[in-house]
Amino acid sequence: MLLYTVDARTHVGDPYDDSNVPMQVHPLLRTPDLQVARVAAAQFSQEDWLVNLSSGGSMLLGPAHLASGAISGKGKDRTAVFQIPPERMGSLATRTGKSLPVGNEGAGIVVAAGERNKDLIGKPVAVMGGGMVTRYRVVPARNLLPIPDGVPIENGAAVLINPLTALAMIETMRERGHSALVHTAAASSLGQMLNRICLQDDIPLVNVVRRPEQVSFLENQGARYVCDSSSSSFTDELSAQVAAAGATLAFDAVGGGKLAGQILSAMEAHCLAQVFAYNRYGSKVHKQVYFYGGLDTRPSELDRSYGMSWSVGGWLIFDELKRMKVERLDALRSRISAEMQSTFACEFAGELSMTELLDPDTLKVIAQRSTGAKYLVNPRKPLS
Amino acid sequence: MLLYTVDARTHVGDPYDDSNVPMQVHPLLRTPDLQVARVAAAQFSQEDWLVNLSSGGSMLLGPAHLASGAISGKGKDRTAVFQIPPERMGSLATRTGKSLPVGNEGAGIVVAAGERNKDLIGKPVAVMGGGMVTRYRVVPARNLLPIPDGVPIENGAAVLINPLTALAMIETMRERGHSALVHTAAASSLGQMLNRICLQDDIPLVNVVRRPEQVSFLENQGARYVCDSSSSSFTDELSAQVAAAGATLAFDAVGGGKLAGQILSAMEAHCLAQVFAYNRYGSKVHKQVYFYGGLDTRPSELDRSYGMSWSVGGWLIFDELKRMKVERLDALRSRISAEMQSTFACEFAGELSMTELLDPDTLKVIAQRSTGAKYLVNPRKPLS
Repeated sequence: MLLYTVDARTHVGDPYDDSNVPMQVHPLLRTPDLQVARVAAAQFSQEDWLVNLSSGGSMLLGPAHLASGAISGKGKDRTAVFQIPPERMGSLATRTGKSLPVGNEGAGIVVAAGERNKDLIGKPVAVMGGGMVTRYRVVPARNLLPIPDGVPIENGAAVLINPLTALAMIETMRERGHSALVHTAAASSLGQMLNRICLQDDIPLVNVVRRPEQVSFLENQGARYVCDSSSSSFTDELSAQVAAAGATLAFDAVGGGKLAGQILSAMEAHCLAQVFAYNRYGSKVHKQVYFYGGLDTRPSELDRSYGMSWSVGGWLIFDELKRMKVERLDALRSRISAEMQSTFACEFAGELSMTELLDPDTLKVIAQRSTGAKYLVNPRKPLS
Repeated sequence: MLLYTVDARTHVGDPYDDSNVPMQVHPLLRTPDLQVARVAAAQFSQEDWLVNLSSGGSMLLGPAHLASGAISGKGKDRTAVFQIPPERMGSLATRTGKSLPVGNEGAGIVVAAGERNKDLIGKPVAVMGGGMVTRYRVVPARNLLPIPDGVPIENGAAVLINPLTALAMIETMRERGHSALVHTAAASSLGQMLNRICLQDDIPLVNVVRRPEQVSFLENQGARYVCDSSSSSFTDELSAQVAAAGATLAFDAVGGGKLAGQILSAMEAHCLAQVFAYNRYGSKVHKQVYFYGGLDTRPSELDRSYGMSWSVGGWLIFDELKRMKVERLDALRSRISAEMQSTFACEFAGELSMTELLDPDTLKVIAQRSTGAKYLVNPRKPLS
């Protein structure tokens, strides 16, 4: 069973033996800000398997293809082996031969706390910080968010990263002087949250989806602008909606192909329609596409037909959170607490044990890359 | 003869009739900062014909291909007609049916001046501000740079835009926290200037050229890092040189194809070699490629195999100059004055009349896109 990993800095003990937890972690708690949470459910999403954000590929598979895997053994002896293309091994130098902690976030009960937060002991909390597929996890207090009374603990397993991502997109929009957004793969859990936020806050949002049925799916959730990139009239629809929204900023989870360029072209056409003099360098309005995911692993094709005032690049929520002022982050956390079962509600496809995560049937569902295939991993569920 | 255009805001009179210049422009000179220069030579470079920086294409041809042209007539009646692909007409809405001023910069003699700069009258000056293919040009004082005693006036025809561009690249590098540069199409006039600046200022510069003979051409000018993108070992050489230089910033005049991505990959490999822990999101060091030209008109292909801390986008000297603090701009102008015949010297392929600019032989030379095909246009040279 390759999945579970122990990292001495952040993990506590063997997941299948908690006989001496949390006693053994007391030395770590000299820092008054640290907490130990007993994990009840870790969120496990497609991106842990599939997302190709760097040359190293995803956390679990690296750049291996999901279909290349062979799974054998049972219980603690379950083993999964995937083939990595030899030419990609160079980018894996820093991880070759090492086990890595997985699982961006989860929910649990605080079982030990530093001086400053003793009152949290026994309380249910949402936790983020990576390495959540474990029984116990030590994190700084800022990585916790108390789950309000009346909210089931599992509902807190995905209320930090996606909600903070959606809210931080709005922060980025305001900070950089934009007033409307384009979002791709917009039928995702994150996209639905962003749509709810934008409707509440009266921010024009152009939702770009990849299948026709997702248009009505989002329209039924109140979305005003939705266009389908698989439609033959996509670029016309995109242009009309970008113009109506006045969007000059996009967050793109797709990455590959022509989509980012099509979005920039639509923005530039809208900007040019508002000036009367020809300028060889295009409009002066800065147009930005941020890649925050890479669902389409092909190269991004940019034909640069949108003047000189544009930029594309990576946008990573963890870097944004580090940059964010404490009072802004506190405001976002408060909003998440208040709207945990409405704006920031999230659905799960099921609850798995750590071996079920390596089940061929689970892998098939994940490989379809269908929107919303998020699982909960329960590290206390018996292994099969 | 389609080239010449009159723009009431900035141009003065017909280029073939200066009977009442500069008297007629006195009303314009109520602003104490304005100057009138009689143009002696305008610089005319490939980019006026060829550069495809926006969907509108180049200033003269728009998105028409140079080979599609038919030239007829003589003297003032010379006419050039080029074919524009119908699907590109949409991007030309703001210029269709209008004549446009051309020629980014030139040199001339000041013949009239506002109150503040009367001492410049009769002096040779370098001038920028567009629309330089004309006999007289009104510009604000900041668009002029006096040509020092002993420097032939023609030598001042290209001492503003390229030199300021090269110097502004260094300003951008320092401002954004980088310490070394990659430059593409590095055997260009601009590239040679940038190489001389970097050698003087001890800034590591990786020169990327497109033909083998350009390697020794730049090495003979003292360049330390030169690699040829047409070489089979290009990516290895680029990686080694980017690592040795420690470059995390590139200025790319090529734009199309895989080059920008190859540069980002080389930068990321260097950054990753300095960290020991695997991070699924790549290195934390921000890597930037700025497109400032588009010699290769194909789409840019970005495979995003360089983590999340990267950005590509347009970089336009005119916007940079607007952003620059006055004291920095003054420092750059002083340096250009002092080094006009050394660091910032530029060679021309010849001096043309305005009709010779439309000569089929001239067009052939320009169409080869060979490095350094810069012409001087003398608007007083008799038409043929």
